[in-house]
Amino acid sequence: MPNDRSPDPARRSERAHTAILAATRELIMTMGYDAMTIEAIASAAGVGKQTIYRWWPSKAAVVLDMWVPDVEQQLAFPDTGDVAADFTTQIRAMMELSQDPLFGPSLRALIAEAQHDQALAQKLLDRIFAPRAEQGKERLRAAQQARQVRGDVDLDVAMDLLYGGFYRRFLLRIAPVTADYPKAVVDAALAGLMRRRTRR
Amino acid sequence: MPNDRSPDPARRSERAHTAILAATRELIMTMGYDAMTIEAIASAAGVGKQTIYRWWPSKAAVVLDMWVPDVEQQLAFPDTGDVAADFTTQIRAMMELSQDPLFGPSLRALIAEAQHDQALAQKLLDRIFAPRAEQGKERLRAAQQARQVRGDVDLDVAMDLLYGGFYRRFLLRIAPVTADYPKAVVDAALAGLMRRRTRR
Repeated sequence: MPNDRSPDPARRSERAHTAILAATRELIMTMGYDAMTIEAIASAAGVGKQTIYRWWPSKAAVVLDMWVPDVEQQLAFPDTGDVAADFTTQIRAMMELSQDPLFGPSLRALIAEAQHDQALAQKLLDRIFAPRAEQGKERLRAAQQARQVRGDVDLDVAMDLLYGGFYRRFLLRIAPVTADYPKAVVDAALAGLMRRRTRR
Repeated sequence: MPNDRSPDPARRSERAHTAILAATRELIMTMGYDAMTIEAIASAAGVGKQTIYRWWPSKAAVVLDMWVPDVEQQLAFPDTGDVAADFTTQIRAMMELSQDPLFGPSLRALIAEAQHDQALAQKLLDRIFAPRAEQGKERLRAAQQARQVRGDVDLDVAMDLLYGGFYRRFLLRIAPVTADYPKAVVDAALAGLMRRRTRR
């Protein structure tokens, strides 16, 4: 930041970092993900482009880091003791965040870019998807200890049942993610599709 | 096709159409999806670029149409009477097709482009995803009639349980789609995650 005369480089660096993320948030609101450029972010943050490239390889990487605190705050996993209610609450929060006019298009764009950018795919996994999946599995483990969820279930597969449908609907647009979707998918995943009488 | 002197325009048109799809298949094998251009397809098919653009708005749209017969053939839904075995077979076929070094990267690229191209998203839905989803729901309806699958289950949600995890793993790379995945997800979706004793 040109006007920061602080003699402490670490502090100046931290301020520049914060200013870049704040400028990114501001610009995404005013011009949207697609139109925003690294140049625009640098100019709005009062830094040089090379300062941004020192920390982030691309616009997508900056945007990803900008969203991390929102995701962490809004997609925490509740534990009220009712596993069905807790996953319904969390999936509903995810649905609402994905329908946010700023976050939703960013998520789409990041997942799309990650399909041909391995480094971005890894960062998206490490910073957004894997921490949520770990928290979800932790909640399932608590439900196993409370003897609500079967002890022999593979927790990665359990997370696929609970969360896969959201991505199928969001990315493939095969069906809308409606207000009643979170409860419907959680109830079906917990109860299973098979009729009781004919289970082997 | 310059050397086609057939006086029948419909027949010439059909030949050009076939030549374009054949050239696309050939070029995807030799240069890959990313490097292939509409110009290269036109040149290899012996047609002008404008002939391609008369039928398809983009390279992605040509590639999509090129894959439709493969998808229809390889991802048909079996009906042996055993609903678990049939979905395991079909999901395994889908897994194998997605791991094909030509089809897999095309599918990734098409889904990625569809995130910012509504027309492509609609075409991908109409030609690839929706027909498979309809066939899957048809198989589930037969299983309901055979009193294997619960009659009160929402079939779109059932398809989310069976298929969502594949897309979550394939697109988010949150876990690999391994050889034992198809059976594991089908068994879990049919049986449900809940312990029997504590079901309400």
